[in-house]
Order: sequence, then C-alpha cells, then structure tokens
Amino acid sequence: MFDRFNIELLSTTDPAESKLEHHKAIQDLGWSGRIVPAFRPDGVTNLGRKDWRQNIQALSQVTNIGINSYRSFIQALEKQREVFKAMGAFSTDHGVNSPYTHELSENEVESIFKRAISGNSTEGDAEQFTAHMLMEMARMSIEDGLVMQIHPGAFRNHNRFVFERFGPDKGADIPTRTEYTRNLYELLNKYGSHPELTVIIFTLDESTYSRELAPMAGHYPALKLGPPWWFHDSIEGMKRFRQRVTETAGIYNTAGFNDDTRAFPSIPARHDLSRRIDSNFLANLVARHIIDTDEARTMSKALAYNLIKKAYKLN
Amino acid sequence: MFDRFNIELLSTTDPAESKLEHHKAIQDLGWSGRIVPAFRPDGVTNLGRKDWRQNIQALSQVTNIGINSYRSFIQALEKQREVFKAMGAFSTDHGVNSPYTHELSENEVESIFKRAISGNSTEGDAEQFTAHMLMEMARMSIEDGLVMQIHPGAFRNHNRFVFERFGPDKGADIPTRTEYTRNLYELLNKYGSHPELTVIIFTLDESTYSRELAPMAGHYPALKLGPPWWFHDSIEGMKRFRQRVTETAGIYNTAGFNDDTRAFPSIPARHDLSRRIDSNFLANLVARHIIDTDEARTMSKALAYNLIKKAYKLN
Amino acid sequence: MFDRFNIELLSTTDPAESKLEHHKAIQDLGWSGRIVPAFRPDGVTNLGRKDWRQNIQALSQVTNIGINSYRSFIQALEKQREVFKAMGAFSTDHGVNSPYTHELSENEVESIFKRAISGNSTEGDAEQFTAHMLMEMARMSIEDGLVMQIHPGAFRNHNRFVFERFGPDKGADIPTRTEYTRNLYELLNKYGSHPELTVIIFTLDESTYSRELAPMAGHYPALKLGPPWWFHDSIEGMKRFRQRVTETAGIYNTAGFNDDTRAFPSIPARHDLSRRIDSNFLANLVARHIIDTDEARTMSKALAYNLIKKAYKLN
Repeated sequence: MFDRFNIELLSTTDPAESKLEHHKAIQDLGWSGRIVPAFRPDGVTNLGRKDWRQNIQALSQVTNIGINSYRSFIQALEKQREVFKAMGAFSTDHGVNSPYTHELSENEVESIFKRAISGNSTEGDAEQFTAHMLMEMARMSIEDGLVMQIHPGAFRNHNRFVFERFGPDKGADIPTRTEYTRNLYELLNKYGSHPELTVIIFTLDESTYSRELAPMAGHYPALKLGPPWWFHDSIEGMKRFRQRVTETAGIYNTAGFNDDTRAFPSIPARHDLSRRIDSNFLANLVARHIIDTDEARTMSKALAYNLIKKAYKLN
Repeated sequence: MFDRFNIELLSTTDPAESKLEHHKAIQDLGWSGRIVPAFRPDGVTNLGRKDWRQNIQALSQVTNIGINSYRSFIQALEKQREVFKAMGAFSTDHGVNSPYTHELSENEVESIFKRAISGNSTEGDAEQFTAHMLMEMARMSIEDGLVMQIHPGAFRNHNRFVFERFGPDKGADIPTRTEYTRNLYELLNKYGSHPELTVIIFTLDESTYSRELAPMAGHYPALKLGPPWWFHDSIEGMKRFRQRVTETAGIYNTAGFNDDTRAFPSIPARHDLSRRIDSNFLANLVARHIIDTDEARTMSKALAYNLIKKAYKLN
Repeated sequence: MFDRFNIELLSTTDPAESKLEHHKAIQDLGWSGRIVPAFRPDGVTNLGRKDWRQNIQALSQVTNIGINSYRSFIQALEKQREVFKAMGAFSTDHGVNSPYTHELSENEVESIFKRAISGNSTEGDAEQFTAHMLMEMARMSIEDGLVMQIHPGAFRNHNRFVFERFGPDKGADIPTRTEYTRNLYELLNKYGSHPELTVIIFTLDESTYSRELAPMAGHYPALKLGPPWWFHDSIEGMKRFRQRVTETAGIYNTAGFNDDTRAFPSIPARHDLSRRIDSNFLANLVARHIIDTDEARTMSKALAYNLIKKAYKLN
C-alpha cells in the first residue's frame, strides 16, 4: 500500500523516551520506504500526567543519563533529539492544553522540577513548566533544525468512562477555546523571526483563523499555519480555513497539506479531498480574475506538494 | 389558525410553580388541539432572582409541601414534574447564564439553600446552585422521561430602562460568549451516555458550533443540538448551523426544527423557511454527489418532521 | 489626487494635545479640499502609556490650563474638543485594549488621576480610568455633537524588536478576542438611547458580529457598526460582515463604508472594492427575491454614500 499510495514519506509520533525499536526494525529490513519518527515529548514535559515520573525514568534509561535535576533533564532531551534525528526525524510535536509560552529563570524551573520529581508539584507548576518547555523546545529546534509542531486546545479524555475502560486517545477529546495572541507572545518575540526556526500551529478553534493566527503568520517569518485539523479536516472546514486565512496570511505562510490519520488506508482519500478543495478555491479566484491560471497552477502545486516539503525542510 | 396551520402539537413554557390553569381550561374545552406545558423551573433554580423566595412560596402552595430545606424543595419539584407530565408535558426548559454543571454534596447544597431561604445567599451560591440543579434535573429526567432543554448565554434585561419600565423579556437580551466543553463535563460524564436521557442544547454563540457542540453531540448519545435559535433563526444563521455542525455531528444528532415563536401567526412561515434552507443544503450535497436523492429525501423528512418527534420522544 | 479621486472629505486622527498646525497650514492655503482632524485622546486617557505624563503636559500647554487634577484635565479636554470642532472635526476616535466602560465616582477618579500624575498608578488604575473616560467621552459627545468611534482589541506592538527599533504602529499589532455585551453595558444603559449620540464600533473579532454587535446595534439607537476593519477590510471579510450582521441589525444600523488607509493612493480602490462587494450582496438578495431592485438601488446608495454621511452627521 505504501508504494501503491505513492507515499514519499511517513512520519509517526513517538514519545521522547521511546527506544524507536519499530523504526529500527523497519530500517533493518533494508526496505526503501521512508518512515521516520517525530519527537513528541508531551509525556515528560507535562508534569500533570500520572505517568510523568515513570516517563522520566524511561527517558533516563534510554539516554543513560541520571535525571535528578532540570539540567540533566534538558541534557537527556537534547541527547534523545539527536537519536531521533539520526533515525530520520525532522520534526517535534507538542500537544498542549494551551499554547502559553513563558521562560522561567533557572532557579524557578529547577524548583518546579524538583517538586515534581518528589511528587509535590501543583497544577500551576505544570502550567508554568509546559510554557517554559515550549520555549526550550524552540531554542533546541533552532540548534538542531527540527521543525516544531504545536497543536493545542483539546480537552483530552472528556469521557471518563471511556478513558478508564479503554485508555487515552479513544475518540473522546473535545476542543476548547484557544488563545494565541497573548500565549505565543514570548515565543514569537524571542524566536519568531529566527531564520532557522519553523513553528507550525494546528488549531481546533476556527474563530482564531482570521483573528489571531493569520495576522501572526503574516507577521512572524518562523510561524506557519498547519492545515485544518481533526474535526475541521473536512470539506467545509477546509473551505473556512482558506477563506479566513488567505487574505491576511496568503498561502505561502501555510504549511500545505499533511494528513494526521491513524487509518493508513485513508491517506490517498484525504490528500485527494484536500487537493480538490484547494483547487476549487484557486479556480474560484481565477474565475473572478483575482489570480490568473498560471499563478493558480503554481499555487496548486505548492498547496499539494511544495509547501509541505518546504515547511518541514524536506528534500 | 391552529387547525389551518396543521399544528400537531404546541408546547408552552410554564414556571415550576404554575397552577397550569390555562392548560386546564383548554382541556376542559374538550378541544382536540394538543397544547401542553413544559416545565421551566428557572424561577426557583436561580437563587439570584429577586422573586426567588416568592417563587419558592408559590411552589410550596401549589404542591402543598412546606419547603424549608433543600430536600423538601426537591420533593416539591419532583411532585410538580408529575403534575406537568399528567397535563401532557414532555420536556423541561432551562434558561441559564452559563451551562456550568456541578454536583454539590448534600451538605453543601443544604447550606446554600438555607442561606438563600434566609435571604443571605451570595452570587457564588447562585452559580453553584444552578450548576447543581442542572445535574438534578438530568437525574429527574432519567427517572420521569422528560426531555431536558438548555439554552444558555443570554444577558437578560441588558437595557435597564426597558426592564424597569416594561419588565423582563421585552427584546433587550443580548448574547454572550458561552463555554460548553468544560461546563457540560460533569453532566455528560455522569449522564451523557444514559439511554433514557435526551438533552437538547440551544446556543447563541455560533463559534461553539464546530468547536464544542458538534464534537460533543457526535460523542455523547444523550446530547442533541437544537436548531439555530433566536438571532440565528434566519437564512444565513441556518446555513451556518448546517455548514459547521453536519460534518462532525451529522444530521441525526440534531433535533430537527422547532420554532420558539411568541407570535402565533409566524409559525407556518418559520417552518417553511427552515424546510427551504435545509432542502437547499441537502440539494447542494446531492448536486455534488455527496449524498444521493433517496438519502436526501429521507434526510429532508427527518429534518422537517421525524427528528423533532424522536428528539422529544413524541408519538 | 484629492480632486481626481473625487474625495469630498478626509479626516485625519490627531492626539488630544495636538496643535493641529498641519490643519492650520492647509486652511491657510485657501484650498477648497475638505481635510479635517478627529479628536483621538488615547495618549491622555490611557494612563499605562510611558508618554502619558508628557502628553498631559502638552495638553496643558496647548490649552493653557494647568492640569493638576482630574477636574482640570476634563476642562482641558472639553476646551480642546472645541478647538478641534472649530477646525472642522466631527468625530472622536478611541483605540482601547478592551471596550470596558464604567463610571467612577468623583473621588475614585480624582485619586486615580493623582496617583498617575505622581507616577504611582497601577495597571488596574489604567483599566478603570480608560473605562471611565469612555463614559466621559460619550457624555461630551452628547454635549458637543462629535461622533464617537471605538476600535478595541488590538494587541499593540506585539513584536518588541520592531517596536524598539522602529517605534509604534509599524504593522506588528495582532488582534485579540474582544467582549462587548458586558463591557458596553454601562455606556449603552446610560447613553445608548440618547438621540444626540452616535457611537460607531469597529471590531477585529469577527465572532462578535452575530453574537454581540448586531444584536446590540439592533437594540440601541445610538450604536452603529463600522465597516469590516483592518485585517477584515477584504473581499471575504466584507462578505462575512454582511452575512453575519444584516439579518439582525439590517444595513441601516451599519455606518456604510469609510476606509482607514494610511496609503493615500489606495483610497479609490478601497471604496471600489467595498461597493462591489456590497452590490454583490444586494444583487444576491434581489436574485432570491428577498428584496426588489428598487430597494437594492436605495440600499446600494446608502451603503456607498448616504449612510456614512448620516452616521457622521455630515452635510
């Protein structure tokens, strides 16, 4: 199917503490298909998770670094990012409640980390730590070139019964209102104009398309808007995205189309739909003489193929 | 007009403490038209109202239950719901500032109720009490089968002059931003999958259609979305509702169309408009080969007639 | 270009403390073109600005009123509004973070003003003072007839680097979520039905069009909705505005089209675009037999020309 679907590249998302054994197994096959990991550290950057200390331990084991301080935690993350890169990873992925970014002082973050290691962290600690770690992840991305993906605003495991019986990620996540202008302020001010950084935002809150995300993507060179995501990865959802984003951010500040399916056979249909909707959008601009056919052709290729390769620095 | 309009059923909304004398008068006529009450307890579940104690007294009188505790209050409500049901009621109706739901302990709620009875309740008390009463109303609905309607988010009596001179409900209510994902969490977790419960939500905040309401209605079997309401009961409003809701929740998680007019002669025009807009929506899906004509016919009948009967358990 | 563009009137915005020397210079030319100032007091009504005390001093100098109290501050503002009016001004302009309006007692506002004059005001002081000054500006507008424009919700100077290197207003302002129903409550209750007042609201938060602004503009005679502004002054933005506002507020509660360009040569294109979009909107209503051609013609003239003259009391 991988060949038949004409897939150039497939990226999984993998916990920071992953041994990447499946990726190693694929590589050992000597197969030509390009399947790579993405670095998804939510399990160790979100102090509020029940499995946080367990994940820290696993990160310690896989990196062979004793993690008893914030400083050693950072060392382990940087080391593991290199391992991911060596396995072909080109991106990181951050699922956060809120896109709040805020840099803490060395002392503050060490204190929070130590409270967490000893099982005494508060909800406020978790919020501050996540905000700080987004700043750190941007810093690391500038250093190692991994493209940073942020997708905030899902209330995870909204249905407790489903969660307790079947576990997380079973279709019971519900979107919430999300604020970007204030929350991304620190990150964009410190790193938003850095030529080595690309941050791709995926949102579940469509009211932010024209109000917050398009203006920011139009302003900060490092910021790109990911395609309509999850509940909005649909005909009307895609139309709303282009209608609300394009006049302010253009199409070249969007990241083109990548699907995030868990259903492998759905890949061709998803790309086909996206290409049709984008083509309709462009054709409508041509019909109204806003762009000409040549421009539409270039944009069409960009939306279907070139932009995503550029956004993720692929070649 | 009732016959000429071909009305099968008309529901009024009536305070919990109502003697339903008009309904009795209609029944005594021996007329065949079906006009029934709906149980609307806002006057006794909202502690913040100036007439709250007066309403409690009226509820006490009409039920012949001395209401001096939360427990006796609940008994009176349950008794009065039975009276409404006996008069043909099939639904309850809840106009709340916020759809916040939260169950209090027996002790907490008794304390709040006693503070309120003695005229000492706070604004926080009122908020907590309403949140608790929504939980109680869901519990009672499961027991007695009444369908629960919630319509939050109106800032009532925004124009003080109009309110003081002409009283409430004189066209000076203005919508406010409304949050559902967190606010309905407790109610949906405790009762959202119960086969005996139907909760129908009407909203004034269109930004929640695709972000919060459609995903929740798609997930929780007990939750249905009411038609576009009040300011949004209009051509463009109806189009936005279908465009933003359908891809996530489908049409079978919506409640079909019921108007909420205060102008009796407007009823046929309102249903006519709704049917035209929904037919246009379906015809557009047919024209794009997303559904076929047979499916559109079934859906059209559902949206105009069958869904509303099913949602309200009518027969 | 002024003649060639067939411009009847051009209004600049000028700080409250301005000497209006450029306007005097234009008048001294004896030229027939009508260029007038608008009274924009943000520099003296926003205590949080670094240049606030400097602006107060300038206002003191230009008015020849020693400003050492709130009372003398108000006298200076009233005097300067008269100077602006004498130069042809017909409007005031208020750029605020939030449209929060709230009247303080004489004592409260004097205390805040004195803390500010002595350099000891807090962030809370600034918020309260701005809210109070919006109330005062509405009062003055009723007295002197200047039309009040409010445009809230821009996070100014989001890019600190651009701000520090190039100064304010360099294209780095990002919209934020804005609340109107609660924030405008006091202003609309006190003055919203006054026949001498016109308040025109410009928003960056499109989610408020149908939810808050259209219902309020439909209710309060003094409130008019300005055209889609800034990021939303675009084809799709203009379409969304009409689609979401018209069914509740109609077109006669909107202010018609005025551009707010900083690029003089863009003026004809901006008006041309607005007229085309509005004509398309009306033509679509005609095609669906919602209005007839005669009505469309009248509305078209209103949207392009008459409404803006009426909203700003021009003749």
